[in-house]
Amino acid sequence: MMIPNIDIATRVYNHKWKIDPIVRSLIDMDFYKLLMCQSVFRNRPDTNVTFQIINRSSSIRLAEIIDESELREQLDYVRGLSLTRGESTWLRGNTFYGKRQMFRSDFMTFLENLRLPAYHLEKRDGQYELTFEGKWPEVMLWEIPALAIIMELRSRAVLKDMGRFELQVLYARAMTRLWEKIEELRGLGPDLRIADFGTRRRHSFLWQDWCVQAMIEGLGTERFVGTSNCLIAMRRDIEAIGTNAHELPMVYAALAKNDAELAEAPYRVLADWHEEHDGMLRMILPDTYGTQHFLEHAPDWLAGWTGVRIDSGDPVEGAETAIRWWKSRGEDPREKLIIFSDGLDVPQMKDLFARFSGRVKVSFGWGTLLTNDFRGLVPGDGLAPFSLVCKAVAANGVPTVKLSDNPEKATGPKELIEHYKQVFGVGAQKRIKVEV
Amino acid sequence: MMIPNIDIATRVYNHKWKIDPIVRSLIDMDFYKLLMCQSVFRNRPDTNVTFQIINRSSSIRLAEIIDESELREQLDYVRGLSLTRGESTWLRGNTFYGKRQMFRSDFMTFLENLRLPAYHLEKRDGQYELTFEGKWPEVMLWEIPALAIIMELRSRAVLKDMGRFELQVLYARAMTRLWEKIEELRGLGPDLRIADFGTRRRHSFLWQDWCVQAMIEGLGTERFVGTSNCLIAMRRDIEAIGTNAHELPMVYAALAKNDAELAEAPYRVLADWHEEHDGMLRMILPDTYGTQHFLEHAPDWLAGWTGVRIDSGDPVEGAETAIRWWKSRGEDPREKLIIFSDGLDVPQMKDLFARFSGRVKVSFGWGTLLTNDFRGLVPGDGLAPFSLVCKAVAANGVPTVKLSDNPEKATGPKELIEHYKQVFGVGAQKRIKVEV
Repeated sequence: MMIPNIDIATRVYNHKWKIDPIVRSLIDMDFYKLLMCQSVFRNRPDTNVTFQIINRSSSIRLAEIIDESELREQLDYVRGLSLTRGESTWLRGNTFYGKRQMFRSDFMTFLENLRLPAYHLEKRDGQYELTFEGKWPEVMLWEIPALAIIMELRSRAVLKDMGRFELQVLYARAMTRLWEKIEELRGLGPDLRIADFGTRRRHSFLWQDWCVQAMIEGLGTERFVGTSNCLIAMRRDIEAIGTNAHELPMVYAALAKNDAELAEAPYRVLADWHEEHDGMLRMILPDTYGTQHFLEHAPDWLAGWTGVRIDSGDPVEGAETAIRWWKSRGEDPREKLIIFSDGLDVPQMKDLFARFSGRVKVSFGWGTLLTNDFRGLVPGDGLAPFSLVCKAVAANGVPTVKLSDNPEKATGPKELIEHYKQVFGVGAQKRIKVEV
Repeated sequence: MMIPNIDIATRVYNHKWKIDPIVRSLIDMDFYKLLMCQSVFRNRPDTNVTFQIINRSSSIRLAEIIDESELREQLDYVRGLSLTRGESTWLRGNTFYGKRQMFRSDFMTFLENLRLPAYHLEKRDGQYELTFEGKWPEVMLWEIPALAIIMELRSRAVLKDMGRFELQVLYARAMTRLWEKIEELRGLGPDLRIADFGTRRRHSFLWQDWCVQAMIEGLGTERFVGTSNCLIAMRRDIEAIGTNAHELPMVYAALAKNDAELAEAPYRVLADWHEEHDGMLRMILPDTYGTQHFLEHAPDWLAGWTGVRIDSGDPVEGAETAIRWWKSRGEDPREKLIIFSDGLDVPQMKDLFARFSGRVKVSFGWGTLLTNDFRGLVPGDGLAPFSLVCKAVAANGVPTVKLSDNPEKATGPKELIEHYKQVFGVGAQKRIKVEV
């Protein structure tokens, strides 16, 4: 009676899989991609955009670690996915940020009919060159699955020769580490607000799912406010979290016909957003072309927005800049929300919480070091997370540019970066090492 | 497809259990109990013996931690067990220490018909008084299941209010701890020999089973030579390990009609054993009434035995005494085996291995700190192992006595202990704290 019964049908069914798919659902994806997709689908549906995978950790030679045919199989599998009935029902029927019918009916029809477009893959200098070109609302949805696939294929490559108990202990160590972080976060008291932003650079899907469940039990859903991952939010019956990201101002900027339109582009994005969303979704991401300049030149209606997300540069400086800005516009910072989301781990969150709690509402979007802290757990540190991104690199044939508040995170052709710096009045910036 | 199919039949079957039995098989038991049982069944079948549970860690008030009705349910469950066909086949057909048909046919018939006899249970001073009285070959088989049941009920009592992920992290920590011990043991090289002796004071059955499997993977079956637990040995297809224990000389001594017979009793036990077994089973456990005196007065044929097990006192002293003794009898210690089995953990094993490897063959019987090292893992250290034993306390109405090489481990009425000390020439002994 102690030997578990094998469910023969399940076993046979499992053996029919040719691969072990990493991304098994179109909504195994960050919520903000869907929100942005709806915005793009409404406002700029015919823009032709190219997304590209960029490995900022060039010492990790992915093309030597990950087998190309396995990568193609995983990407092809995602191309075969479509929104299931249950997923569609969840998106249509759910309340997001307290609001029903967040997704319009025409957008849902688009999403239900969507298959991800073709990809272009080749090896170059020990790295994969992986690009997605096509209509913006379609290609933009490749970002998260492409990243998650590469991250997990790398994990699998490192794990494949380990023994069963060695593996179990590896995960035991990772679990213990996360739990100790959760215990430390619990010490911050009942006002902590934190969400999982770790889909894109997770160790694996199952591990992210474990992390989310541990956060639910360890912090409760008052403090652990949700996950950016729609599939996990649906499965675990918690909030899907997210608003908007750099790709919107980057593409809008690339589409600008002159410097005046370029300077206006980041505000134009938020004007479109303002029309569509209110409340918690009115979050400013000010750093695409420099936070300081962005806020100084922002129209007054933006000061009425709910908060600011700090995603690059020195987070203390970014938050102080936002607080000064709100004060200068006659807003009470204590009513405003700051979401920190750049390369966080517990020590930074503790510092930021201690420094800003009470002065503003503080929240954290915890990413890679929530869902992929395997640092030091295998010889040679082969499971340490690394900095892989997937960016919109061109729109209608024009290269995009991102400056951010950290020159290490800048993307785009050198001469264009210089031009953007001029237009957006960005001077010297503090260089901060990008770990994850 | 990611939600595992539930096997309905299994689930319904599991729900039929009124309790979650701790001991589910008569051979979830130490191998040496069966070997000794066969010897007793042959040589002293009609002796009336009382076994008693003794909690040497009196600060742990078991009757306040463990529910009496749950304890009774578990004990009653064991009384309902009988040897299954498969278990009988394994005992009859298996090779133990390279020898087939270790168990005689008449003994197997006895075992196949055996049900464990009644127990007597009451609460006293915050402890359980749990005794088993009856024919020696029957009551002696209560020792291991009774200990394992109390240990695991105590674990369950401490775990019952913990959350699912808190529990998972608890086991993650215990797994990591054991794995680190295994990695350290691996560092001792290919000559290490170690067996699991942890059934009686295990955290739980499933945990012991995990530990054994981790040892198999981590050390390989060259170094991890087997387990004392017959059920796990059968399931995991490894060697069942064990020879004889204190209960034999204790009962033989209690049955002695005069001091001459008393002084002779420990040798009489081994003379009976000598008749029945050879090779690896000829292991001397010399400490019941003091190692020094036992060896000095031992008959010459005992010096020809395979080795000595050191189970109390200072292990270095015990081993040096054995080595001196072999030399004095013209034996080459390098041909002899010493099994250390008293409260071991990795540091002691490393020391002993370094000190004696090459001078004798060294082996370890690793018990409680293999299968129950949950020290420090819950608040208040409620899962730390403690020193629970089950001893033969009387034979045919006469109290038994054990002196051992550590007065902390002595059992029996005070005046009898003094008498035994005189008969066996035991003087001052070093007092060593008993942890597990």
